[in-house]
Amino acid sequence: MAVYTEVGDEELAAFVASYGLGDVISFKGIAEGVENTNYLVETACGWFILTLYEKRVDPAELPFFLGLMEHLAARSLSCPTPVRDRDGANLRELAGRPAAIVTFLEGVSVRRPTPEHCREVGMGLARMHLAASDFALRRPNGLGLASWSPLFQRFAGRADEIRPGLAALITAELRDLEAHWPANLPTGVIHADLFPDNVFFLQDHVSGLIDFYFACTDALAYDIAVCLNAWCFEQDGAFNITKSRALLKGYESVRPLESAEREALPILARGSALRFLLTRAYDWINTPPDALVKRKDPGEYVRRLAFHRTVATPASYGLDSAGPAAGIAAT
Amino acid sequence: MAVYTEVGDEELAAFVASYGLGDVISFKGIAEGVENTNYLVETACGWFILTLYEKRVDPAELPFFLGLMEHLAARSLSCPTPVRDRDGANLRELAGRPAAIVTFLEGVSVRRPTPEHCREVGMGLARMHLAASDFALRRPNGLGLASWSPLFQRFAGRADEIRPGLAALITAELRDLEAHWPANLPTGVIHADLFPDNVFFLQDHVSGLIDFYFACTDALAYDIAVCLNAWCFEQDGAFNITKSRALLKGYESVRPLESAEREALPILARGSALRFLLTRAYDWINTPPDALVKRKDPGEYVRRLAFHRTVATPASYGLDSAGPAAGIAAT
Repeated sequence: MAVYTEVGDEELAAFVASYGLGDVISFKGIAEGVENTNYLVETACGWFILTLYEKRVDPAELPFFLGLMEHLAARSLSCPTPVRDRDGANLRELAGRPAAIVTFLEGVSVRRPTPEHCREVGMGLARMHLAASDFALRRPNGLGLASWSPLFQRFAGRADEIRPGLAALITAELRDLEAHWPANLPTGVIHADLFPDNVFFLQDHVSGLIDFYFACTDALAYDIAVCLNAWCFEQDGAFNITKSRALLKGYESVRPLESAEREALPILARGSALRFLLTRAYDWINTPPDALVKRKDPGEYVRRLAFHRTVATPASYGLDSAGPAAGIAAT
Repeated sequence: MAVYTEVGDEELAAFVASYGLGDVISFKGIAEGVENTNYLVETACGWFILTLYEKRVDPAELPFFLGLMEHLAARSLSCPTPVRDRDGANLRELAGRPAAIVTFLEGVSVRRPTPEHCREVGMGLARMHLAASDFALRRPNGLGLASWSPLFQRFAGRADEIRPGLAALITAELRDLEAHWPANLPTGVIHADLFPDNVFFLQDHVSGLIDFYFACTDALAYDIAVCLNAWCFEQDGAFNITKSRALLKGYESVRPLESAEREALPILARGSALRFLLTRAYDWINTPPDALVKRKDPGEYVRRLAFHRTVATPASYGLDSAGPAAGIAAT
C-alpha cells in the first residue's frame, strides 16, 4: 500500500497525451494494491487508474492480466478496462516500469460483509467464470498446490516462531492435501484473490471486481473455496454458515456446480486456507515488525484450516447434498 | 505519504451522511501529505478530501488551519474549503481522530517549475497574503527563529554524521541570524511551506494552494524567502535568478514590497534555508535508512544556505534596488 515510483508532471502529461484522453486535470498516488504503484488520474475524459508494475510482477505475465480484463469488460463484466493508446497498445512503459491505464470503477469495498453481500459476490464470481470461459490465454497458478511445499521449505525452520507446532501442522496438512487433491474438476480462469478489498459495491450490489493480478487457470471451484475463506468467517474466527450458504446460492444461481465440485469443496477450502496461511507466515517472518507494511496475522488461517478439517460434507457450507446442480443433473 | 488510519465503509458512510453529501460512490486512500491520513471520496455531490489528523498535529491548532482555509476560500482564493456538517461543524471525529472534509481541488503540481510557474506562484502567494490580512486568528510560527536553536540542540552531537563540519556551520549561522534577524517587518498569515508539491496548476496557471498545516503568523517576506528556496534552485543546486526575478515580480504585481522587506530578503532566505536544513537533518538522523518514508537530503539546504551567504543585496535575487515598491513609496 504505497507509491513506490514517483512520476513527474511532464512525464505523465506526455504519457497520457498518447492515449488521446485530453489534459491531465488531477493526479494522486493512491494506497491501493500491495505490489504496484497506482495513481488516480483525472483527465478531460474522466477518471482513470494508472498502474506502474513494480519488481514483484513478471512483465511477461502482464498480457494475460490486461487481456483478461479487456476480455471480461467486453463481456459486460464490470472490471477495470485497459485503455489502448493511439497505436493500439494497452501495455507501455513509464518511469522505467511497465505501465497501463485502466478505467476507474465506482464503488466501495465492504469491511463487514452481510449474507446479502456474500450472495452478490457468489453471483459476481460465477459471472466472471462464465465470461472468461472463452478467454484464449492460460496462466498456471503460481500459488497452487505444487507451490505450497517449496514455499513452506523457505521458512519451515522458523515456522514455530509464529506459533509452536505450526511446522508440524503444515507438514501434516501438505501430506493430506497432496494425497487427496481433486483432479479433473472443471477448470478455467479464476480470480484467486477475491477478498472483500477486491469487490466494489454500490447500494449493496456488486459494482465491479478489481485486482486480477493473481488470476490464473485452475479449478473454478477453488475460486469459491477462496471466497469461503475470505468472506464467510467472522472477526472472532467463527465460520458463518448463513454467509457461505448465501455465497454458494448466489454462485449457483449463475453457474450450478457439478457434483464433483460440490464434493471437493471441503478439501479445496482446506487448500485455500493453507495457501493464505503459507504466504502470510512467510511474510510474517520476512517483514520486520516495525515496517510500515502491516503484517497480516497467519493465525487467522490456522483457525480457518482447523475449521475446514472438521468438515465432513459440503452440507457444512450450507450446500444441500441434493442441491440445484444435482437436481439439474437428474432431470 | 501513507494511510495511517483505516476507515471502514460503514463508519465512512455514516460520517459522510451527516454532511448531507449523498451516498459514497468511491473511496481511496491517497499518498499525500506526510503527517495525516487522506482519502479521496466521491459522493453524489462530487469529489472531496477526507483528512484524519494523526498524532503529530495538535488538535488545538486545527481551528486555525480550517478557519484559515474557509476564510481564504470566502475571499475567492482557490484552496481546499472545509465543508460544514448539518450542525455547522467543520471539525469532527472519525476512527478516533480529529477529521475534516474539504473540497477537492483540480490541478497538478509541477516537478520542474519554469520562470512562468514561479511568476504565478509569486502572484498566488501575494494574493494569499492579502486575502488573509483580515483573518482574526493568530498562530505563532512553531518553526520560526526561536525554535531553531532548541531543535539543533536535539541532534547537534550527531550533526557531523551527515557531513563533517555541519555542526560548526549551523552554530555559526544561528549566531549570525539571531544577531541580525529583522524586526518590525509587516506580518500576517504565511503559508510557510509553499513548495511545488503544494501548488496546483492547470494550463500553467495556479489553480490552487494546498496544505496549510504549517501556516502561522509571521513576517510576510519570510514566506517569499521560503519560496525562493523552494522554487528557484535547479536540481544541480544552482540558483536561477530568472526564476527568482519572476517570482518576485509576480508577487509585487499583487503586493509591492516595502523597502525594509526588500532589504531583509537575503537574511530571511538564509533563515529559511536553515529552517529546512534543520528539520531535514533532524529527520535524517531520526529516520532509519530502510524506512519506507523517503528521507530528504539535508545537503541541498547546506548548498542553498551557502548561496544566500554570498548575497550582499536583494539585487542578487533579481530585485532592482529601486523597484516598484520604492517607486511607489516615492510617489
